Amino acid sequence: MIDQTADSHQPSARARLRAFLETARVRNTILGIIIFNAITLGLGTSDTVRDAIGPTLRIVDQVVLGIFVVELTLKFYAYGLSFFRSAWNVFDLVVVSVGLLPQTDSLSALRGLRVIRAMRLLSVVPQMRAVVQALLDALPGMGAVIIMLSIVYYVFAVMGTIMYGNAFDEWFGTLGRSLYSLFQIMTLESWSMGIVRPVMEVYPNAWAFFVPFIVITAFSVLNLFIGLLVNTMQSAVEEEHEAEMEKLQALVRTETDQVDAHVLALTEEVRALREELRAARDDRE
Amino acid sequence: MIDQTADSHQPSARARLRAFLETARVRNTILGIIIFNAITLGLGTSDTVRDAIGPTLRIVDQVVLGIFVVELTLKFYAYGLSFFRSAWNVFDLVVVSVGLLPQTDSLSALRGLRVIRAMRLLSVVPQMRAVVQALLDALPGMGAVIIMLSIVYYVFAVMGTIMYGNAFDEWFGTLGRSLYSLFQIMTLESWSMGIVRPVMEVYPNAWAFFVPFIVITAFSVLNLFIGLLVNTMQSAVEEEHEAEMEKLQALVRTETDQVDAHVLALTEEVRALREELRAARDDRE
Amino acid sequence: MIDQTADSHQPSARARLRAFLETARVRNTILGIIIFNAITLGLGTSDTVRDAIGPTLRIVDQVVLGIFVVELTLKFYAYGLSFFRSAWNVFDLVVVSVGLLPQTDSLSALRGLRVIRAMRLLSVVPQMRAVVQALLDALPGMGAVIIMLSIVYYVFAVMGTIMYGNAFDEWFGTLGRSLYSLFQIMTLESWSMGIVRPVMEVYPNAWAFFVPFIVITAFSVLNLFIGLLVNTMQSAVEEEHEAEMEKLQALVRTETDQVDAHVLALTEEVRALREELRAARDDRE
Amino acid sequence: MIDQTADSHQPSARARLRAFLETARVRNTILGIIIFNAITLGLGTSDTVRDAIGPTLRIVDQVVLGIFVVELTLKFYAYGLSFFRSAWNVFDLVVVSVGLLPQTDSLSALRGLRVIRAMRLLSVVPQMRAVVQALLDALPGMGAVIIMLSIVYYVFAVMGTIMYGNAFDEWFGTLGRSLYSLFQIMTLESWSMGIVRPVMEVYPNAWAFFVPFIVITAFSVLNLFIGLLVNTMQSAVEEEHEAEMEKLQALVRTETDQVDAHVLALTEEVRALREELRAARDDRE
Repeated sequence: MIDQTADSHQPSARARLRAFLETARVRNTILGIIIFNAITLGLGTSDTVRDAIGPTLRIVDQVVLGIFVVELTLKFYAYGLSFFRSAWNVFDLVVVSVGLLPQTDSLSALRGLRVIRAMRLLSVVPQMRAVVQALLDALPGMGAVIIMLSIVYYVFAVMGTIMYGNAFDEWFGTLGRSLYSLFQIMTLESWSMGIVRPVMEVYPNAWAFFVPFIVITAFSVLNLFIGLLVNTMQSAVEEEHEAEMEKLQALVRTETDQVDAHVLALTEEVRALREELRAARDDRE
Repeated sequence: MIDQTADSHQPSARARLRAFLETARVRNTILGIIIFNAITLGLGTSDTVRDAIGPTLRIVDQVVLGIFVVELTLKFYAYGLSFFRSAWNVFDLVVVSVGLLPQTDSLSALRGLRVIRAMRLLSVVPQMRAVVQALLDALPGMGAVIIMLSIVYYVFAVMGTIMYGNAFDEWFGTLGRSLYSLFQIMTLESWSMGIVRPVMEVYPNAWAFFVPFIVITAFSVLNLFIGLLVNTMQSAVEEEHEAEMEKLQALVRTETDQVDAHVLALTEEVRALREELRAARDDRE
Repeated sequence: MIDQTADSHQPSARARLRAFLETARVRNTILGIIIFNAITLGLGTSDTVRDAIGPTLRIVDQVVLGIFVVELTLKFYAYGLSFFRSAWNVFDLVVVSVGLLPQTDSLSALRGLRVIRAMRLLSVVPQMRAVVQALLDALPGMGAVIIMLSIVYYVFAVMGTIMYGNAFDEWFGTLGRSLYSLFQIMTLESWSMGIVRPVMEVYPNAWAFFVPFIVITAFSVLNLFIGLLVNTMQSAVEEEHEAEMEKLQALVRTETDQVDAHVLALTEEVRALREELRAARDDRE
Repeated sequence: MIDQTADSHQPSARARLRAFLETARVRNTILGIIIFNAITLGLGTSDTVRDAIGPTLRIVDQVVLGIFVVELTLKFYAYGLSFFRSAWNVFDLVVVSVGLLPQTDSLSALRGLRVIRAMRLLSVVPQMRAVVQALLDALPGMGAVIIMLSIVYYVFAVMGTIMYGNAFDEWFGTLGRSLYSLFQIMTLESWSMGIVRPVMEVYPNAWAFFVPFIVITAFSVLNLFIGLLVNTMQSAVEEEHEAEMEKLQALVRTETDQVDAHVLALTEEVRALREELRAARDDRE
């Protein structure tokens, strides 16, 4: 399906390109360039280094970006639309594309985002891919609790905005600010001295809003964590367990089969005896 | 019992109403209205939106509230007093009732509480019900430790009020304030820089009160968590384990039964042989 | 040994007293008094209540204290020196004794400590005893890690005092202050903004002291927790597991024994047959 | 290999020295000196003590340091280059060497580091060695996640430096400062009130940088912890499990072997019977 245009005997140009891109040499070169770029991006944050070799660093960055663009273009040509089937390719595409956006010195946010390109270390090294994959695999099992937490979080944010928005504009002025403040409270950072005590000076019963919020979210996160842990543990124990059970079942089978074989041999023996006796009797008669 | 007045052949009006309320169409309509209301309540927090369509939002809110009141009235009529048997119905009743309280602009707390109605998302979606149920199911197993923690917490609060109440009225002036301050200390928020260091400037030995409190509560919470985790894990492992054990037991039974059958067949064989021999001997005599 | 002086037929006065003290009525009365006292101690923290019925509360407190003293004296008489064998009795003795210390209004710390008497709730209710016992049982398994943590903690405290004591007298001026500050840092409370950033303004390399301390202690506490969890889990799983294993072993035994019984019966059959044949042959000869 | 020069009959001087160094008396003496030194180092932090017996303490310290140097020199002589094979010896060498560096009163950091010598408590007591070993053994299993976390951490630090370095020189001015600030944010200390809210006053979208950072690192640390826990648990359960499985397998074997033995005995019986009959028939013919 991927290789529809290819002669099945003679690999097409695209198939050869695919093979070439998958060689250890190409992969390691790309990996080397990513690490090298991660270092130069880090060096670029130092004023001293930038004063000394700033223009060089900028050229290096452009060259690396060019290599990445070429690499991804080749990959796209080699794989066609199935390029987009791998989430890692899409990830690479996005983090490299950020570097192609216009970079003015005033928009430091965009200049900073460019660095996200170094995250390709995660997508290029297979072990790192496996770790990220394992992290993402854990998410679906947490789905229901996360949705529940989101509903509680949203309702408390709307309530907080209506109740405390007027008096504490900086913290609860808009829904967005309330969401941020409640996230801060969820992490327990300065929740009391920083937020709730000042609020309680105006609304003395505010603790009845915030303390339940903390207890509910803490308890939910705890359960989220326990669920995650039990799942991981269970699948880990299960595998090993099954192997042992199979060994035990095999043992039960072989042992009883051995006894059974002896019983059947004995049955044969008895039958032969009976035959002999019958034959002897027939002879006598 | 629920349907005492109904003719058993012809469903009563109440039974038909129950069936109607349980149809997917009705449930999804209610769910849709809850989500829609959650969004309009959220929009209502934005000044811009309120300036533009504030009156509309207020009307929408009244209509939605009316629909909920009608829905719950119908449910109450359909189920009679058994309506109150489901904790979820009681929950729905309470969160909807809050919206019926008089709402003056000055009482922003009540206006805010109205939003709690959006929590019906948890009671209407079966998956969410299951998650909340699972969270609540975890509570009884934690009962003893929670009571112990409450006793320790209460005793420390009374002690704190007596010892530091005069000098630190804001934090330990009343039992309520002490309970709040100790909850804050339990979450480790600004416990030292915010509370204990200032207290220690007046009472240099205050650390001997607060550090043990932190250690005891942290250790108790830890044990609470471990107990919860072990319970969850155990029941998860147990189920799967039992299934496997039963499989193994079944195997042992079938395997030995097979051998046993062969042994019994052999016994028959031997008995037949013995019969034959006896018959032969009888013939000869 | 406890009852050396008692006639073995006629219970001694001490044995009867012991039995009396263990009756449900006495225990529940004591429990009731403890709860009542816990409430009056709590009420005593309210200025309003104290203004209204302050003298009454003080009298109630004296009466309760008197009852506890009588109770413990009776217990001591009933059990003799074996009274001290139960750590719970010692606990009761200590928390009640605190109330007997001279209480001047200026020594609010002692007035506060008196409240610790309410902790008897933990020692009187058997379920609470069990919870506390379970918490204490977890400690020995954590012994080695706690000692290791203490050594690291002590060494860092001495180092901190020598290195930062001069410049930051309030935090690291003495070994005690360093221990307290490092405990605060261990709980992550204001460790950076409150302590390490100010220290780094004088000693720019202070992060190399504090960050490793945080990482080492966090990692040790984590391992402590994991060890505790694994132990609890293991013993929980083990018990249940052993029961199942024994069931399975019993099954294997009964099943094979059944087959074995059939085989032995068959052997008897064959032997009988052989005897018969031999007898027949002897007859014929 | 260690003892190449030694006559195999007569232990060499080095072998005897090794034996001597390993005697309980020597080990306990060294342990006693370490504990004594840990106490004197602690006492040295007290101004009062230093005023009273400061010179004595300094002499004690020099003597202890001398003893340690002699001990390690003897060990090095006794073991030769294999001295360096034990990481604990290297550890001892490093922490003792720190005390040999020139100590000027101005360089209080070096004076403080000297105290690290008391950490030898961990390397000398076998139980402590085992605990530290267990902690270190846990590290490799965490390797992949730690590398992933380091990459994310580094990328965010570079981005933070570029984006917020100019406006918030103290927190994000250099890569080092960003790494420190992000470590603080990772521990959730004052992340919002202390860092992110001030940053958001200049860059209102800064939350989109910091909140994902917190979520990603918290989730990764959680997974790190879960991985560690599952590994520990698995190996603990596995061991015990295997022992039980082997017991069960042994039971299955002995039970079926017993049945098998009876079957075989029976077979012998039948064969003997057949032989007898054949012999009888041969007699008759």
